[in-house]
Amino acid sequence: MNSSFATRLNASIQEHSPLCVGIDPSSSLLKSCGLPDSAEGALAFGTRVLEAAAFRISIIKPQSAFFERFGSAGFKAMEDLCSLARSKGVLVLLDGKRGDIDTTGAAYAESYFGPSTTLHVDAVTTHAYLGIGALQPFFDIALRANAGVFIVVRSSNPEGRDLQLAKLADGRTVAQHLAHEITVRNGAGGERVGPFGAVVGATCEDAAAIVADLPQSFILAPGVGAQGATMRDIAVRMPNAKGRVLANVSRAILAGGSTPSEIRTTVRALQDEARQLL
Amino acid sequence: MNSSFATRLNASIQEHSPLCVGIDPSSSLLKSCGLPDSAEGALAFGTRVLEAAAFRISIIKPQSAFFERFGSAGFKAMEDLCSLARSKGVLVLLDGKRGDIDTTGAAYAESYFGPSTTLHVDAVTTHAYLGIGALQPFFDIALRANAGVFIVVRSSNPEGRDLQLAKLADGRTVAQHLAHEITVRNGAGGERVGPFGAVVGATCEDAAAIVADLPQSFILAPGVGAQGATMRDIAVRMPNAKGRVLANVSRAILAGGSTPSEIRTTVRALQDEARQLL
Repeated sequence: MNSSFATRLNASIQEHSPLCVGIDPSSSLLKSCGLPDSAEGALAFGTRVLEAAAFRISIIKPQSAFFERFGSAGFKAMEDLCSLARSKGVLVLLDGKRGDIDTTGAAYAESYFGPSTTLHVDAVTTHAYLGIGALQPFFDIALRANAGVFIVVRSSNPEGRDLQLAKLADGRTVAQHLAHEITVRNGAGGERVGPFGAVVGATCEDAAAIVADLPQSFILAPGVGAQGATMRDIAVRMPNAKGRVLANVSRAILAGGSTPSEIRTTVRALQDEARQLL
Repeated sequence: MNSSFATRLNASIQEHSPLCVGIDPSSSLLKSCGLPDSAEGALAFGTRVLEAAAFRISIIKPQSAFFERFGSAGFKAMEDLCSLARSKGVLVLLDGKRGDIDTTGAAYAESYFGPSTTLHVDAVTTHAYLGIGALQPFFDIALRANAGVFIVVRSSNPEGRDLQLAKLADGRTVAQHLAHEITVRNGAGGERVGPFGAVVGATCEDAAAIVADLPQSFILAPGVGAQGATMRDIAVRMPNAKGRVLANVSRAILAGGSTPSEIRTTVRALQDEARQLL
């Protein structure tokens, strides 16, 4: 990857749209597609979505959990899907929310970006329960690989509120603190929008304030569709993020049906809406 | 798994010791063992430790990151190591710190405890950045499988302090809040020590207070050895946890050398120390 993640993602958004297509091969989703509940089914689902969209989407977000359900065979299916997407110019943001300290954090980064891995992606999600400073070895490896890292700041579910809005000794909330740390790191990188993105739920009523603290970040906004938010909510709640917010849609890509042509129609409509609003 | 995790772990501690043997096949550790830096090397390392100890240890803690470094082949090596340990009566606590909401959280639990997975373990670690309430689907599946779940409450690294000691609206710290939620869940289970454990760093000076809020939990205490804490620190800082604290030792199992007989000697000495102090 010779250009930075931000450069690659900006080009893709310009060419296609700011829609992020979630690949969540749950048992019920595979069933509704007439696919087996297996590693093969999970790969077939992801392939169906990519082919239905004729690979004309900016980025996919495979959810690692739904592949790991099938153990090492599922992990291999996830690798194959990521390779397929990237070979056709579709960026891959792997949603695994891995995070750990020290050499362990570095090992996670190596599993996405190192020389020994067979899983190759453009960006990943992570969490900072162990402290964002502890993720530095993870970040260093990602940066050297020109990759992106999305840190969960405000999650789309109501149960995250207490912890994410808890206050540090200096009076800032955990979410504000993380947003500040992300912005400092992006500022050091010298790009208009940096490699450190943030996950901010489209369902969060405090989203505008959080996004205001993230002027140089891509924002991944989950919660559209099944969790009740709309793309209009993103536009209203995160007006400052125009041009750098990714609306993630997972289950809703099947809202119009599960055949390839139905998925194509739905994805096109979602892309139109994302281009128009975001 | 017909008996509860707590029953199995208590029996193992009685038979062997409260030592948890971390399996962290990092590049440098494999090199010091003369093993290749590959999935095969990672499996060979874990096998060497288990055989050196003649499988007479309570529990191992494979660190998922160090296996995922090798992609799906590493994941398979991790599965094989877990199967080997369990076939010989050694419990497996997989350290992956996975956690997510809703059906995604459930999918992670299925990847350890479900019918479709090939990775079988006795217990796992998780993080609660998305809110401990969001992990309920994850917990439900683990409980049905008689498994254990260790939630990171206070990590052993200094960077975790700000977030983990941030204050909720009711004045409690994040760590106190999680400890309380763990205790409530264990209380509902009806066992003396419940399925919900906590990770509390042996390096944390506030460990005693946190452990006091966890009267019915196993405590996993990382940080012994390379991170500077000793088993005596655990005994001094967590006196209330006697009989239910697991001292985790990873890199230090090679402190006396990396041949099978040297590892055997080191593990025996560590087990003696753990039995005596904890």
